[in-house]
Amino acid sequence: MAKTQGKVITCKAAVAWGPKEPLVIQDICVDPPQKMEVRVKILYSSICHTDLGAWTGVNEAERAFPRILGHEAVGVVESVGEGVKDVKEGDYVIPVFNGECGECRVCKKEESNLCEKYHVDPMKRVMVSDGGTRFSTTTIKDGDSSQSQPIYHFLNTSTFTEYTVLDSACVVKIDPKAPLKHMSLLSCGVSTGVGAAWNIANVKEGTTIVVLDWVAEGAKARGVSRIIGVDANPSKFDKGKLMGVTDFINPKDLTRPAHEMIREITGGGVDYSFECTGNVDVLREAFLSTHAGWGSTVLVGIYLTPRTLPLHPMELFDGRTIIGSVFGGFKAKSQLPDFAQQCMKGVVKLEPFITNELPFEKINDAFQLLRDGKSLRCLLQISKFLSK
Amino acid sequence: MAKTQGKVITCKAAVAWGPKEPLVIQDICVDPPQKMEVRVKILYSSICHTDLGAWTGVNEAERAFPRILGHEAVGVVESVGEGVKDVKEGDYVIPVFNGECGECRVCKKEESNLCEKYHVDPMKRVMVSDGGTRFSTTTIKDGDSSQSQPIYHFLNTSTFTEYTVLDSACVVKIDPKAPLKHMSLLSCGVSTGVGAAWNIANVKEGTTIVVLDWVAEGAKARGVSRIIGVDANPSKFDKGKLMGVTDFINPKDLTRPAHEMIREITGGGVDYSFECTGNVDVLREAFLSTHAGWGSTVLVGIYLTPRTLPLHPMELFDGRTIIGSVFGGFKAKSQLPDFAQQCMKGVVKLEPFITNELPFEKINDAFQLLRDGKSLRCLLQISKFLSK
Repeated sequence: MAKTQGKVITCKAAVAWGPKEPLVIQDICVDPPQKMEVRVKILYSSICHTDLGAWTGVNEAERAFPRILGHEAVGVVESVGEGVKDVKEGDYVIPVFNGECGECRVCKKEESNLCEKYHVDPMKRVMVSDGGTRFSTTTIKDGDSSQSQPIYHFLNTSTFTEYTVLDSACVVKIDPKAPLKHMSLLSCGVSTGVGAAWNIANVKEGTTIVVLDWVAEGAKARGVSRIIGVDANPSKFDKGKLMGVTDFINPKDLTRPAHEMIREITGGGVDYSFECTGNVDVLREAFLSTHAGWGSTVLVGIYLTPRTLPLHPMELFDGRTIIGSVFGGFKAKSQLPDFAQQCMKGVVKLEPFITNELPFEKINDAFQLLRDGKSLRCLLQISKFLSK
Repeated sequence: MAKTQGKVITCKAAVAWGPKEPLVIQDICVDPPQKMEVRVKILYSSICHTDLGAWTGVNEAERAFPRILGHEAVGVVESVGEGVKDVKEGDYVIPVFNGECGECRVCKKEESNLCEKYHVDPMKRVMVSDGGTRFSTTTIKDGDSSQSQPIYHFLNTSTFTEYTVLDSACVVKIDPKAPLKHMSLLSCGVSTGVGAAWNIANVKEGTTIVVLDWVAEGAKARGVSRIIGVDANPSKFDKGKLMGVTDFINPKDLTRPAHEMIREITGGGVDYSFECTGNVDVLREAFLSTHAGWGSTVLVGIYLTPRTLPLHPMELFDGRTIIGSVFGGFKAKSQLPDFAQQCMKGVVKLEPFITNELPFEKINDAFQLLRDGKSLRCLLQISKFLSK
């Protein structure tokens, strides 16, 4: 039993105090896990665009400060709360922003991974059980009294901290022999991208797709014959080739909409397109790039805009469909361990996605790399000591 | 061989001369069928809202006058053009607005019924082969010269005439023992509605849906457990019950959006909803009436509006999908004959859909019945003589 079990832990965390303000690495207090909660020591955490979005506070309604961001990570269980059976102290785990309670109407159906209780919710900032936080600032003396301030949670996870507390529905046990650094990517990016191709689109051998980055790797693994990458940043093209992209289109080089060129070179359009940017005009291009009759557009991006879908209802009568993909359609606890095994076997290669590694205290530099488009994933080493 | 083969036929037709102008029953000339075309003697034709829409000219770009409307009918082949093998003189047939050439990339794939050459196209007004019409006014003497005027085609069909010419891709042979009057409904309404439930949504036994009219009949045949009809016209409720509707909601009786009530009475929403009105606000209600995670909304209506989809891209991340249905997903020539057999066996009952019968010359009264919401389908007897 961990010496810290049942006690408040004081540790380092990167706290976001306001929109676009540099994160502050500071001591915080982390309460013990309550019923059906798990306290996890974070070993590595990577940074995703969703962290950036929450930090810049683009969507006002989602703002909550002070807050601990981060949702892609790997860690080890420090202690568990009452009732937690499927993980125990010392287990290697990944946090997931889209949990699986296993008991609600949705969890019991095959069709969806949007658990009624623990599905992704960017508005959520507290724990489900009591509406409180498990994070707080260390005690500050203010004249005669001393007080601390609650720090908000983020996306069911909050991983930019040495210790975090999660609902057990959002903790997935992994094989202790797994390459830990890489497993961080399964918390979001790789699962979201590969799952969009496998579970949502269910891409088939010999088909054609339009996409960049994560999805390509999953499509390649399924034998997709032609993977067209569209990106205005040509520096991504070399990386894309490694992931299976066969054709590149830079919309800046074109004098006509990209979908017209894509339809031309594919004889009418691709079978699937994946929209990862969160830009509704790009979404329209992705939609029109697919073949009439059966083309399917999978939405993976986050749309921080008040604009609605730029599609006319009659355009759906051309037989093109559009579908949203959350966490790649994976049911976290029941399906991710198997996916992790497939990654360990090399079905999906994880190494190319980690483009940078930095120590925890350089987290603001890591944010900047992502903002500048200079990193796909920057991995932070959160806890220095690794018992393994 | 018909005496008329290869000759121009003069016959009666109901000609639309301008938006909302009463149709004029008059003599017209019908040319012989060209290569891969079929000339059909129309026996019965029914009237659908799409005819009304084209007649009122709501969508300016689709206007074309003079024109022969009508697309739901049953008839008998008078003669065929060069190369037509699958139907011959004397065969009983139904015209279809969404053809099947059998040879294009789409026809050869299972996924879609949107034939590249003969799919539904409300803008189309002429024959594919030569861009001409097969209808014209009878010769009019104008001083010394005499001339006739071309009359436009409609929806690959034009059935408000004793004789019409269609591409053979748009002609489906039916069993001569079929009840002819009822078969008219397979040209559009029943195939579109039942197919939306069977082929597009693929509704399953024990599920719940929201809908009215045509789709209900198909859903009932598949064992759907709860069929919720939503309509502001309570006079439709009795008819709905016959078709399998189990619950009725009149939005006018509610003080809150219909989707809230539907979610409440179904424990979170229905499995499928079918939008048949062509109203985008109703579409949004239909979308929100389905259950998060797996709810599917099938569009069947025609949207004569410049408004785009009133859905935010992030709303697709709740796992609800939206899909358009053309001709119920049926591939006309290869699948409709079997569907007709199923209707003959009573799997789907056709009688309740025919609410009125009138002679051809009362076609303007029939239009008015539909406009007033007093008829679901009014059947017109087009040709008086029935050789059968």
